[in-house]
Amino acid sequence: MTDPAAAYEELKAQGLKLDLTRGKPSSEQLDLAAPMLDLPGAGHHVSPKGTDTRNYGGGQGLPELREIFAPLVQVPVEQLIASNNSSLELMHDTLVHALLSPLPGAPTRWVDAGRVAFLAPVPGYDRHYGVCERLGIELLPVPMTESGPDMDEVERLVAGDPSIKGIWCVPKYSNPDGVVYSDETVRRLASMETAAPDFRIMWDNAYAVHHLTSDEIEIADVLALAAEAGNPDRPFVFGSTSKITLAGSGVAFLGASQANVDWWLALTSKRTIGPDKVNHLRHALFLRDAAGVRAHMAAHRELIAPKFAMVQRLLSDAFSDTEGVTWTEPKGGYFVSLVVPDGLASEVVRLAKEAGIALTPAGATHPYGKDPQDAVIRLAPTLPPLDEIERAMAGVVTCVQLALARR
Amino acid sequence: MTDPAAAYEELKAQGLKLDLTRGKPSSEQLDLAAPMLDLPGAGHHVSPKGTDTRNYGGGQGLPELREIFAPLVQVPVEQLIASNNSSLELMHDTLVHALLSPLPGAPTRWVDAGRVAFLAPVPGYDRHYGVCERLGIELLPVPMTESGPDMDEVERLVAGDPSIKGIWCVPKYSNPDGVVYSDETVRRLASMETAAPDFRIMWDNAYAVHHLTSDEIEIADVLALAAEAGNPDRPFVFGSTSKITLAGSGVAFLGASQANVDWWLALTSKRTIGPDKVNHLRHALFLRDAAGVRAHMAAHRELIAPKFAMVQRLLSDAFSDTEGVTWTEPKGGYFVSLVVPDGLASEVVRLAKEAGIALTPAGATHPYGKDPQDAVIRLAPTLPPLDEIERAMAGVVTCVQLALARR
Repeated sequence: MTDPAAAYEELKAQGLKLDLTRGKPSSEQLDLAAPMLDLPGAGHHVSPKGTDTRNYGGGQGLPELREIFAPLVQVPVEQLIASNNSSLELMHDTLVHALLSPLPGAPTRWVDAGRVAFLAPVPGYDRHYGVCERLGIELLPVPMTESGPDMDEVERLVAGDPSIKGIWCVPKYSNPDGVVYSDETVRRLASMETAAPDFRIMWDNAYAVHHLTSDEIEIADVLALAAEAGNPDRPFVFGSTSKITLAGSGVAFLGASQANVDWWLALTSKRTIGPDKVNHLRHALFLRDAAGVRAHMAAHRELIAPKFAMVQRLLSDAFSDTEGVTWTEPKGGYFVSLVVPDGLASEVVRLAKEAGIALTPAGATHPYGKDPQDAVIRLAPTLPPLDEIERAMAGVVTCVQLALARR
Repeated sequence: MTDPAAAYEELKAQGLKLDLTRGKPSSEQLDLAAPMLDLPGAGHHVSPKGTDTRNYGGGQGLPELREIFAPLVQVPVEQLIASNNSSLELMHDTLVHALLSPLPGAPTRWVDAGRVAFLAPVPGYDRHYGVCERLGIELLPVPMTESGPDMDEVERLVAGDPSIKGIWCVPKYSNPDGVVYSDETVRRLASMETAAPDFRIMWDNAYAVHHLTSDEIEIADVLALAAEAGNPDRPFVFGSTSKITLAGSGVAFLGASQANVDWWLALTSKRTIGPDKVNHLRHALFLRDAAGVRAHMAAHRELIAPKFAMVQRLLSDAFSDTEGVTWTEPKGGYFVSLVVPDGLASEVVRLAKEAGIALTPAGATHPYGKDPQDAVIRLAPTLPPLDEIERAMAGVVTCVQLALARR
């Protein structure tokens, strides 16, 4: 093995400018949706069911598009809303609505409830935390396991504290660990006793069809399980086509019980006269049906699976025998988590930055940007070309080796 | 003159099903934007300045589109935000942000301010009222004059009450009266003393380029006047292409001081990773420049001016000598206000409904749906074809005549 310090000096001398921070699709992935840029086509603005998609109205979104996505996000079509281009804004607005108007089953609106707290399985998605921090909702970390959040801990917390009003979940190929929630985890989330009568699961199924292997994993149906357990209003399900069609010009979805959907649509009708239905029609014409979505995702997989494989190869070559260095091997989603010995993550990120390799700030996977172990590094390999992934990951390996050597 | 009761019976016997309620563009108007449905075209997703419009990012919106609209909405391009498809949602979200995070210059966020009230010039736009009602913001009506809100009354109210945090304004071709704010009104709004340090003008310039005559009226620049008066953060300017391109698939704009824009973008960055920039590019390619927008609006005018002329003709023929019946003759916008003697508006709307002619509910032009005089009826002549306008207005005339006769 080369001397780590010498290898790091060599790395710096390369003057790299590489970026592994962004969970964005690559240009080649976006090219897969190129035909959408000609759609719906002049004169083709009326949907198959007869909606003139150009005018105002249709607050729940175009039925033809909701029918395509209902089975994929496990929501009955009549309980599914298709909106504009961002599922994050649907999550944000759901919490805004809950702060300013009582949720079904809520004793008060949340701004009048005193403390409002959410459980944040860690590591998790920094933008979920950002929404809560911006809205004054406290975040309580709970540890992730290989089958989802530590449910003993979750059940203990929500049973005892009525100010805990919700939990963030990325149930399939979680950001950043690639964890898939087990059926048992979903069942416990749907049926657990909560001290808050207005407890909600923010079910961000961002990677519902974003498989990296031929093992196309299905998860349990949280809406159905919650209804069976007598908690129909508990889940809010979110999804989007941002990583299916066009990242900035996709369609976001919200699904929930009829009571939640009625509440959400009534409040949202004060905010807008309807979503961009031409974009809904554009998506419906391009994707055609659920099978069309699956076929399109297979094309994505062909483009990005080699990038994930490259990350695995370089990490395995370097660290398969190194104690304390582990990483995830996700079967879907957009991220790999690299776990280094406690206290080293921010040092690795700093070293990489100095060598021209941007990594997501250590701590970003935890509420308030603080990873108490300082151990998790999130790697996002979809955006850069394969050769850049190779050079960036070789650099990351060098940085980890130097940090280990200096310890 | 025929017996009004007999004429009304004849009207009912026609079994009409007509609608003058909706401020929506007609199919023919939407057809003017048909070429947009082919845009930007496969392979043409990079903007002139080099943005790949398909991916995430660009929270302020595509510069090429902001440059086109900056002069039209009187906002410097660097202080203009281009967003998704609804200016109503920008207004709603601005108030949500102000409720949950202190505005520049605000002592507290508004949810912690106790009472929050807005001035509502009446008659006005029901959706403005709906936003406030939904958010718990009290509405205080002030009368409109021919040059804008009664400024003596406005100045008196805002000087004396720090809980009055804002005013709704549709400064050009107002909904529903077609009033254009005089330069003096704009100057007084921009410079008046307000007890609230965080007072805001919600400047909904919805009809900035929506002229019905060759007299293309310009209004004073509220942002510039407010800055000159030492109140740079007072106005929030809104506009949209909903009644320029596609009603449900347009682009909305927000303009304000740099401090307000920074505040708005920072909060909004927690909500979304950016607006639909492909739609921004689609608009920029189709409209090309401010002159292109003006030319496009001239084509709209050709389609809708005859409908407004028909309304004028039928009202003049029937009521030019009738005391107590007046109506507006707007030079732009989407509405005509018909004013009947006190106490008759809801009766006219009821009679029309019974005869199959839907009119906007009397009172909708006032906060909480209550017009204390019960005198204003809003007519929206853009959506139906000309022959339907003629039949509907002939029916309205009959209903007014019957209501007058029965008085």
